[in-house]
Amino acid sequence: MLDARINQDRLWRSHMAMAKIGATPGGGVGRLALTDLDKQARDLFVSWCREAGCEVRVDRLGNIFARRAGTDSGAAPVMTGSHLDTQPLGGRFDGIFGVLAGLEVVRALNDAGAATRRPLDIVVWTDEEGVRFRTGIMGSGVFCGLEKLEDALAKTDESGCGVAHELARIGYDGAEPVGGYPLHAYFEAHIEQGPVLEREGIAVGVVEGAQGSRRFRVTVEGEEGHAGTLPMTGRRDALLGAARMIHAINKVAFAHDPLPVITAGAIFVRPNSPNTVPGQAVFTIDSRHPDAATLAAIGEDMHAACAAIAKADNLALHFTQTSDSAPVAFDAACVDSVRAAALALGIAHRDIYSGAGHDACNLNHIAPTGMIFVPCEGGISHNEKENAKPEDLAAGCAVLLRVMAEWAES
Amino acid sequence: MLDARINQDRLWRSHMAMAKIGATPGGGVGRLALTDLDKQARDLFVSWCREAGCEVRVDRLGNIFARRAGTDSGAAPVMTGSHLDTQPLGGRFDGIFGVLAGLEVVRALNDAGAATRRPLDIVVWTDEEGVRFRTGIMGSGVFCGLEKLEDALAKTDESGCGVAHELARIGYDGAEPVGGYPLHAYFEAHIEQGPVLEREGIAVGVVEGAQGSRRFRVTVEGEEGHAGTLPMTGRRDALLGAARMIHAINKVAFAHDPLPVITAGAIFVRPNSPNTVPGQAVFTIDSRHPDAATLAAIGEDMHAACAAIAKADNLALHFTQTSDSAPVAFDAACVDSVRAAALALGIAHRDIYSGAGHDACNLNHIAPTGMIFVPCEGGISHNEKENAKPEDLAAGCAVLLRVMAEWAES
Repeated sequence: MLDARINQDRLWRSHMAMAKIGATPGGGVGRLALTDLDKQARDLFVSWCREAGCEVRVDRLGNIFARRAGTDSGAAPVMTGSHLDTQPLGGRFDGIFGVLAGLEVVRALNDAGAATRRPLDIVVWTDEEGVRFRTGIMGSGVFCGLEKLEDALAKTDESGCGVAHELARIGYDGAEPVGGYPLHAYFEAHIEQGPVLEREGIAVGVVEGAQGSRRFRVTVEGEEGHAGTLPMTGRRDALLGAARMIHAINKVAFAHDPLPVITAGAIFVRPNSPNTVPGQAVFTIDSRHPDAATLAAIGEDMHAACAAIAKADNLALHFTQTSDSAPVAFDAACVDSVRAAALALGIAHRDIYSGAGHDACNLNHIAPTGMIFVPCEGGISHNEKENAKPEDLAAGCAVLLRVMAEWAES
Repeated sequence: MLDARINQDRLWRSHMAMAKIGATPGGGVGRLALTDLDKQARDLFVSWCREAGCEVRVDRLGNIFARRAGTDSGAAPVMTGSHLDTQPLGGRFDGIFGVLAGLEVVRALNDAGAATRRPLDIVVWTDEEGVRFRTGIMGSGVFCGLEKLEDALAKTDESGCGVAHELARIGYDGAEPVGGYPLHAYFEAHIEQGPVLEREGIAVGVVEGAQGSRRFRVTVEGEEGHAGTLPMTGRRDALLGAARMIHAINKVAFAHDPLPVITAGAIFVRPNSPNTVPGQAVFTIDSRHPDAATLAAIGEDMHAACAAIAKADNLALHFTQTSDSAPVAFDAACVDSVRAAALALGIAHRDIYSGAGHDACNLNHIAPTGMIFVPCEGGISHNEKENAKPEDLAAGCAVLLRVMAEWAES
């Protein structure tokens, strides 16, 4: 088993072959869930897995499980995987790396003629991106009992086309029940989708968990007036107030260690006319932090900062929380295994939190779960320009091989 | 002549009668230039002037001149007036007060049986508001030689309907040439359209001039990123930069005495998505000040403040001036006359600058010109809620009567 080696070129060629399905003119991939392109990608994956000697099962929600048998056929499997669907103008690696890294682990074990006690499952989760059916991490959500199968099957896209119909149409309405059996552990490899690893020249991120997030809508009410005739001292300028608040919530981020991320991403001003003092400004806040208590404190700090400005500027304030997702902490033993594997392999690594949500966040509810990040160019993702280096993908895959082999014996 | 007295009730009733033409459900007036409603308002004004013994002329651009004869028929007239067109959801006083105050001056002189040496002209300027034909202070602009008659007649509205066509349709395509004869002086009464007079409990503003204005478009270029994965320290957040700039240009206003007005009225953010770090923000600046050199200095200060923030935040900045209107200083003798009249009548008054442009700003190019402001409720204008008090209108009208009578003898 320890003789097994990742084949960097083969892993890269698999990515490039998969990237042809739904390739966009800008060098990315557009492959929405349960489309003909998704079917082609699934078919290619299934053919590769069968060539690698795996048994392939499909459940009623189209989740695909390719199993490399273990020596103990009754033992709970060690699972890895991710998704093959992409954003409309997405990249070649987001999700796909997690699936193809699993395949490469199996191929590498095959090359070495290595057996494992527990079976190894490579999974392709249905509709992680959530673009077409306005959902997200759907297949893994139902698998983990976080969402009902009937609800997922009943979802429809903009044209009224349903998940159940599309699964049948592309031939991935499997017979297997969705979930309901034990996993020994779940590991997911993924590109970071942020710039930390690349900037620090580190090949592998040991993912401790995923940040929690809270979103807010901030409405600032002032009073409209003529830009030429209303003196500065009598104004209740909603955009000026919002601008001061956007600056203030940014300062809140830097007052917390480790730094949360706080983003005012969208703003809407009324009447948004060059010669009228703005009467209303509405902006959004996206705040994320790995620690729930800190995340809550950040929300309170931001509210207090905005309230102080509203009071000083004689503006009305409505500070409304619009979403609240708790932070995810991955299983300590899984995280330790990832770190130890990178150390043993001499791969530069660091602990990191995921800013985005992943299928692994769902799996964490039902099995010991860990994630492995690799760098992506400029931290750019959900973008045709998304890119990664063959050697980084191989490094992440080598860590995945080691942790899966380890957990397959435990 | 000094026995002539303004009839406050008659002046108010004239306003209320005129306000019925194009009355809006919100208590305002919607009477765009050269519409059927504008014709009705013009017809009512003309009928009132003829009842008051005036001779009415209409020029080729539809400007209406109602003359009360003087004892010296060859003397250049003292002119007053304003406009009867309004914003789509405008008020009952903006422009209309200047026209009806002129009518009330004539009526008051008639009541007293008072003669003046010079003729008195009450003018209704065509299309001051500039809404329908995307222009502004058009009739007075051509009258003063600042714009060509042919260009004005050729303007069309959104539906392609032209000024010349509409003038003929409503019967105001007069035979008189536009301008080209001497005026002895021009005085215009107007609501302040700002809150200064009301706030200070002062009935009359002695208008020294109109502010100059410079407008800018500020484009801030950063880099888009995932709000969950891009760390705070690596960000180039265009909205955050714009927010800091909006605050900084506000501070520039307070660094100058007397206070200029500086307004960031509109902002456009790309992609304006709650979970994406903004890559671009474009905002507008409207800056005004009565002194040209100060106005220029303010523009430089704002540019410097924005440039410093762009540099600190690693953002690209495009700071572009989009318009430049020089300040207007009204004739010193006219301004002195307005001030002296208010003082003689025992009316609380103060010197003030106009934030908005008026027909008087055009007339100032060809004749000694002055303006008289009266308070409006809350400083609100260009709004159905625009309101003014009968006693304030009468006070402004009394000052107008006094200065016109004075200048009619000089």
